[in-house]
Amino acid sequence: MASARTPLPLAVTMGEPAGVGGEILIKAFAAREKLGLPHFFAVADPNWLADTARRLDLPLDVRIVREAVDVSLEPDGFLNVVRVELETNPEPGVPLGENAQAVIESIEHAVSYALAGQASGVVTLPIQKAVLTAAGFRHPGHTEFLAHLCKTKSRPIMMLAAEGLRVVPVTVHVALKDVARSLTKDAIMAAARITHAALVGDFGLDKPRIAVAALNPHGGESGTMGREEIEIIAPAIAALQKEGIGVKGPFPADTLFHAGQRKKFDAVICMYHDQALIPLKTIDFAGGVNVTLGLPIVRTSPDHGTALDIAGQGKADMASFVAALKLAAACAKRRLKA
Amino acid sequence: MASARTPLPLAVTMGEPAGVGGEILIKAFAAREKLGLPHFFAVADPNWLADTARRLDLPLDVRIVREAVDVSLEPDGFLNVVRVELETNPEPGVPLGENAQAVIESIEHAVSYALAGQASGVVTLPIQKAVLTAAGFRHPGHTEFLAHLCKTKSRPIMMLAAEGLRVVPVTVHVALKDVARSLTKDAIMAAARITHAALVGDFGLDKPRIAVAALNPHGGESGTMGREEIEIIAPAIAALQKEGIGVKGPFPADTLFHAGQRKKFDAVICMYHDQALIPLKTIDFAGGVNVTLGLPIVRTSPDHGTALDIAGQGKADMASFVAALKLAAACAKRRLKA
Repeated sequence: MASARTPLPLAVTMGEPAGVGGEILIKAFAAREKLGLPHFFAVADPNWLADTARRLDLPLDVRIVREAVDVSLEPDGFLNVVRVELETNPEPGVPLGENAQAVIESIEHAVSYALAGQASGVVTLPIQKAVLTAAGFRHPGHTEFLAHLCKTKSRPIMMLAAEGLRVVPVTVHVALKDVARSLTKDAIMAAARITHAALVGDFGLDKPRIAVAALNPHGGESGTMGREEIEIIAPAIAALQKEGIGVKGPFPADTLFHAGQRKKFDAVICMYHDQALIPLKTIDFAGGVNVTLGLPIVRTSPDHGTALDIAGQGKADMASFVAALKLAAACAKRRLKA
Repeated sequence: MASARTPLPLAVTMGEPAGVGGEILIKAFAAREKLGLPHFFAVADPNWLADTARRLDLPLDVRIVREAVDVSLEPDGFLNVVRVELETNPEPGVPLGENAQAVIESIEHAVSYALAGQASGVVTLPIQKAVLTAAGFRHPGHTEFLAHLCKTKSRPIMMLAAEGLRVVPVTVHVALKDVARSLTKDAIMAAARITHAALVGDFGLDKPRIAVAALNPHGGESGTMGREEIEIIAPAIAALQKEGIGVKGPFPADTLFHAGQRKKFDAVICMYHDQALIPLKTIDFAGGVNVTLGLPIVRTSPDHGTALDIAGQGKADMASFVAALKLAAACAKRRLKA
């Protein structure tokens, strides 16, 4: 049953204004009742939103508010927007360096609202990292910036969640040739511990069942095709089990993701990016959600980029953003009850 | 329409007699009419087959023949068996070294029948390599042995085929840490050329569309996360295109296997084992078929091992063997028409 306390709205960041973010935000807002979406507000430039709506002939009524505390607590006909001003309203598909500061401010504000208890979580729209980097942004990525804003000491963990499958890559943006040497027992254990805590706290699972994938084909075949299973992964699993965490493995990755196997686990700890992302996007290309674990705030994001090539054309699929809103609200609700 | 010539039956090898091979062979034979299976005969020990049928309470009428030329050309109520004698009828799940010679002979005979035009192709049941190796078998695997028997000079290529997806790994049984350094332009080109030829000759496609996967996450992001796309894969693709082969890529592997993308390509050349096998087994765990490309004969096999842990229990799924029989017959029919 619903909690006695009304959940606060979610803060949605602007992301790269030349990308598809505005379009999917407006589409989702227009479909909010039909899709049963949680209440959310934008931290963005209201003129940019209005222009985007006009360009795509989408309905949009904006209510400009000064701060998150001014957002209506109940949804009504208006999209509440905490104003962050762009230097220039960009053409779709053409990011402008002069807007980098506003993109960054939108993230900073949204996070501060969530930390201050004025928003139940943050859903970030995709950024164009190269544009921010050129403007002086010094963080390796979106997630690391959020960790910095939240003053989190440990590395946050990326989970990709789709219907029936959650994956957590231990190494992420690493060239394949460097994956094996980047893998450590500590990193596997940190990922599994944070995943376990999130499955309990944010996903409401009593006794999470976590699978750990092997690194090598056939799981290394007893060390004849790679020894990382023996030297790194199995010891990490044994140590985690001693801590009472319900992990099993290492399992050969190729037979770990079919429908029958997926039912046996609540999440799979993967050793590298594509080992996690191939099965997830094969099963659910459009609806996957990126969830950041290990932050003091709830943060999700659509599992796609700015899609500059199709921005402004009305083609962008809002499925992943919709799933990100729903998942953020569900996690926030569980934290509220805890 | 059917060819005027009747296709010859397929030769099925014995594989490891302590594994699930006999069981799935007998189950498939019993269901041959219901499933519309092509005509096939076994190269195996008839007593072992009869014992296996009895143990699992499955119907089986065997006709022992001396050579493949003695097999009935039309299917009737009998499973034709060219006799290869085991030293000892093994307990399910317990392979015996003394039977290695018969396992090898079964393969030798089946291949010789196909080469001599007395069988339209070979479907191999899984072997237990370690047992054969201990008995003096000097080939790295089943496929290499077949290549040796066929006197094929170039390395044969493994394709895994399921409904709607065919994948070809360029490197196969290699530890993940060694994949990048094992990858060469020549190996990619050889895999793509043989795949193209097979898609035309065995799969009946006029203008095959072949995708080539990237090695690194996000395809290496212009060389910032690995340079193999720039230095090895893209040059291979360019050279193949000059030869008139319809290859495209390199494509980031995580977004290459969802339903929409799968429709755009007839096969995907993958850089390593799990990159190919994860999507294939995620989509179709039980029904994938291993097809050996680049041999003078048609050869398929079920995409699983001996499953010693469940041998003799009647649990083994015949789906992959059934698909292997059907695919071998379809390829043989196309070669007959060519």
